[in-house]
Amino acid sequence: MSKEKLWQRSKQRIRFQNEDMDFYFAWILSHQSEGGSAFGECFYAASQVKDGDPESWHAAWTAIAHRVESRATGALEKGHRVSAREAYLRAFTYYQSAAIFIRPRDKRLRDAWQKGQWCFRQAAAQFTPPIEPIQIPFEGKSLPGYFLHGNEGNEKTPTIIMIGGGETCAEELFFWVGPAGVRRGYHVLLVDLPGQGSTPFDGLFFRADSEVPIKAVVDYALTRPEIDPQRLAIFGISGGGYMVSRAVTFEKRIKACIASAPITDFYRLATAEIPPVLQTAPAFLGDTLVKLAGLRSPLPVIAAEKLCWQAGVSKISDALEMARQARVERIDEIACPVLCLVGEGESEEQMMQARAFYNALKSPKGLHIFTAADGADAHCQINNLSLMQQVVFDWLDEVFGYEGAG
Amino acid sequence: MSKEKLWQRSKQRIRFQNEDMDFYFAWILSHQSEGGSAFGECFYAASQVKDGDPESWHAAWTAIAHRVESRATGALEKGHRVSAREAYLRAFTYYQSAAIFIRPRDKRLRDAWQKGQWCFRQAAAQFTPPIEPIQIPFEGKSLPGYFLHGNEGNEKTPTIIMIGGGETCAEELFFWVGPAGVRRGYHVLLVDLPGQGSTPFDGLFFRADSEVPIKAVVDYALTRPEIDPQRLAIFGISGGGYMVSRAVTFEKRIKACIASAPITDFYRLATAEIPPVLQTAPAFLGDTLVKLAGLRSPLPVIAAEKLCWQAGVSKISDALEMARQARVERIDEIACPVLCLVGEGESEEQMMQARAFYNALKSPKGLHIFTAADGADAHCQINNLSLMQQVVFDWLDEVFGYEGAG
Repeated sequence: MSKEKLWQRSKQRIRFQNEDMDFYFAWILSHQSEGGSAFGECFYAASQVKDGDPESWHAAWTAIAHRVESRATGALEKGHRVSAREAYLRAFTYYQSAAIFIRPRDKRLRDAWQKGQWCFRQAAAQFTPPIEPIQIPFEGKSLPGYFLHGNEGNEKTPTIIMIGGGETCAEELFFWVGPAGVRRGYHVLLVDLPGQGSTPFDGLFFRADSEVPIKAVVDYALTRPEIDPQRLAIFGISGGGYMVSRAVTFEKRIKACIASAPITDFYRLATAEIPPVLQTAPAFLGDTLVKLAGLRSPLPVIAAEKLCWQAGVSKISDALEMARQARVERIDEIACPVLCLVGEGESEEQMMQARAFYNALKSPKGLHIFTAADGADAHCQINNLSLMQQVVFDWLDEVFGYEGAG
Repeated sequence: MSKEKLWQRSKQRIRFQNEDMDFYFAWILSHQSEGGSAFGECFYAASQVKDGDPESWHAAWTAIAHRVESRATGALEKGHRVSAREAYLRAFTYYQSAAIFIRPRDKRLRDAWQKGQWCFRQAAAQFTPPIEPIQIPFEGKSLPGYFLHGNEGNEKTPTIIMIGGGETCAEELFFWVGPAGVRRGYHVLLVDLPGQGSTPFDGLFFRADSEVPIKAVVDYALTRPEIDPQRLAIFGISGGGYMVSRAVTFEKRIKACIASAPITDFYRLATAEIPPVLQTAPAFLGDTLVKLAGLRSPLPVIAAEKLCWQAGVSKISDALEMARQARVERIDEIACPVLCLVGEGESEEQMMQARAFYNALKSPKGLHIFTAADGADAHCQINNLSLMQQVVFDWLDEVFGYEGAG
């Protein structure tokens, strides 16, 4: 964590010298392909940011979010439903972006989060049919998400459940597979597992046993009459690559799984770039390292605080202890077809785990390595969601023998 | 023409130091909002370009075009219609981009053009309903274009005709208003006027009397049973801003007009940045200036050659003579509502002409100046097509008393 960037997530540079900031900027640009950002708005906001500075980042994205939200509201008041929903989708992205470098105890985090979610829900209500907010019962609380109908008649077509990672929320998964799934006739279920999105505000935190919340999601999915239980897929990105890879070693009702990328050992992934001598050092040293990194840039410290908040712990060493439990075992017992996605711009450790997972699979399987020349080498293929969508859905079509809509 | 950039078209810098190259790069990125590019592919291609060098530009975009086209073809062969059409749309953009700095007599121009058009038509055939290629009879030849149905039942809903500029083709207008119109229930007619797109290959060249080809387009539109003659709009961007502004001084069957931006005097616009003493100099001096500019950068010379080719003349001085005829008069006789769009990143002369045109209008009118803080200040709003679409269609909805789809 002493490097200037948090993780190796992309080798493609877009706008910022600070690699983490540049990665999040690329993430924001990725939403444009489904109307969730406009690059002119993004580059304008970027022009107001001091490279590497979290405060100016928050101010710039909040300003553009307000501006776009106000256009959305104006359009809705005059009955321009399509324009309203499209502007609300962009406003959502910009509020969510404003929150990226805000500390968990700073009230601006909840503000940005709530405003972003409100904008997304305003947009959701203006689709035909509307995007349906859902609450999946889970251990006396609930997992928030959205359901998108793949066809207006509620025909039984394939369904894709999508799970994000450590820094995503169910809303933004819309840009990954929402319209892309619906265009192909898939029902789409987007959901936050414990620790993701807004769930830490409700006292739900990261847990290693992802099969437990995913069981609740599958239970819910199978209550919906339009979902075909024989064609139920799950797709996880970033930390979700771990969650889905592990879940399918337990959950046999899932009939296809895509992980971008598969993670089999979270602790190794998180610590691979720390020199071995420090990996075995006492826990307090890890906490000290985070503080030292903070002298150089505030971003790693903020990221560490957020991670702790989402994990429900107070120190990064405790979060790392939790990560030791986050392992995928019995890979050879996975029964469903699995597609493994990884970008050549990701870390060596990530590439190694993805390959090892793929090699250990005994079920029908695929491995797709996205390259720099594809313009898709970044973590979660954020620089080319269009190509990711093609690879994911074409594979699913074939697994399910589905001819698709269009 | 002695400056390093051709025109003042944007103040927002994205990737290249060469301002023209940067403008075209932004243009390519703009397509992403309707699936016509992926920024990872664009930034990868850009990484292969030597700043300001037309040859490496051609090679880089051709390479990514081939790559994406081959994925499209693979998807189509396996019946993945949505993935195929989406990849073909991106391949179209990249082939078209490859052609930007190719001289008219270089056979690579026609190659890139034909491949791009072929990709677009492959995509068009995979939409439901298909995007319909059309040929509008004109003086013994024809104007090529496309018709998009705003609803599957061919209900009479409003129609928008879109006209591009000096460097566009009917295919790419799809990304401006195609899906955006259809989402709102508008029928969309995209067409090349003489001199635009592929028409110079067929012996059709720029002409000042835009009302003549536009009359042919309106004649054609009114033969289509799904078009409501009372709700027929026309929208022109770039040079099309001139063509539509002039046409509505003649053509009363057009019921609403949008120009981004209105141009009333093409010669003044083209020469405004040339020092006055040179403006009145003999024609050969203009031709010499172009040659001198070529010593510094090849791009202005290539642009001048292309302009001549599209105008059907051999020297830039002849093209400028034609431009003297390109004037809009009798603005006060325009009967239909008119919306004037202009970006604050455009030239002073453009801003002045847009304002003068707006002031002279006696019909119902609107003026929208897009700002840097909107992320939409560039020529034709290329940095924010989403906002342009909102402004255009919300205004049209109100002019036509149309409640829209959604």
